[in-house]
Amino acid sequence: MKLYEYSLSGNCYKVRLLLNQLNISFARIEIDILKGESRTPEFLVKNPNGRIPVLEIEPDKFIFESNAIIFYLSEGTKFFPTEQFERAQVMQWLFFEQYSHEPFIATSRFWYMTGKAEEYQEALQQKQAPGYAALGVMEQHLEKHDFFVGDFYTIADIGLFAYTHVAGEGGFDLTRFPAIQTWIDRVKSQPRYISMTQLT
Amino acid sequence: MKLYEYSLSGNCYKVRLLLNQLNISFARIEIDILKGESRTPEFLVKNPNGRIPVLEIEPDKFIFESNAIIFYLSEGTKFFPTEQFERAQVMQWLFFEQYSHEPFIATSRFWYMTGKAEEYQEALQQKQAPGYAALGVMEQHLEKHDFFVGDFYTIADIGLFAYTHVAGEGGFDLTRFPAIQTWIDRVKSQPRYISMTQLT
Repeated sequence: MKLYEYSLSGNCYKVRLLLNQLNISFARIEIDILKGESRTPEFLVKNPNGRIPVLEIEPDKFIFESNAIIFYLSEGTKFFPTEQFERAQVMQWLFFEQYSHEPFIATSRFWYMTGKAEEYQEALQQKQAPGYAALGVMEQHLEKHDFFVGDFYTIADIGLFAYTHVAGEGGFDLTRFPAIQTWIDRVKSQPRYISMTQLT
Repeated sequence: MKLYEYSLSGNCYKVRLLLNQLNISFARIEIDILKGESRTPEFLVKNPNGRIPVLEIEPDKFIFESNAIIFYLSEGTKFFPTEQFERAQVMQWLFFEQYSHEPFIATSRFWYMTGKAEEYQEALQQKQAPGYAALGVMEQHLEKHDFFVGDFYTIADIGLFAYTHVAGEGGFDLTRFPAIQTWIDRVKSQPRYISMTQLT
């Protein structure tokens, strides 16, 4: 398998983390989105939407959208439940992540990491309330549960962990969320965990 | 089953359409989001994120996020593929819908439908380019395929159809996209199709 990804991206880290936890070897190809490398004609064949990550599961057979990729990789493994309601709950949290969490927390972090915080000052301000609201929803769930679905680690945790554990880099104060902090440690203690900066 | 929904919402329509196509009877409960009915303490028990639709599959057993709900309902039916790569492709298009399509096309339509177009004039303008980009990605796919995944109608089509076929109500000109228009007719000709205004 080939993973087309950008090292700073939490969406890409989701895939890299799961591949490592599944012990699947892969080649990583760095796509520098700041240089427009995800918008070249060559790349648009892999993902017409011009985004990373993209997983090439066989020559010329591509999957895009990080949460669809981790769904693909996890089906039939311990990282995706067998029970129907739990399967739906995993998808529920992954859609929550992409709609109500990532656009605020990940985007804020991206601007800070790429030196654009000044330029996007007003937008950063606007992303504070919805970003904190998403963290509040997570906190409320984690006060009563060890993981997002069932009582075990699934791709719902991987999906939400990616940008949550680095929310501080986006200007969000995680000290307000003790249950999230405990859950972050719980995720970090999973077998074959790798950090976001380990490109393997 | 009970469907908590708002009649104008395309996200809710996805669920109503699929329930009808699966011939599953359900009770619909109108939640007026304009009156804040999705943010009451009572509703937040159903969905801590305060959004519709929510499906109550058994008393006090809830699923939120429209695309997670249609995933739940479609598993094991002809509306969700059995082949693993195709399953991932369905999820890929559903995540594309929630991240790259809905925030631009649905949100624009919502402002027009609720009389807020003037107030949000600048934001509406900003949503034009990404909205058209999403339609462009769809058009490119549909020029070569009858449906989004495989050669049959799945929840990927339902997910993308909901807001695409009313994109005109959000200020997007669909006459530029002939393949999308043909696909819209194809979806409308599916057995047990109901329109967005049929609340059954």
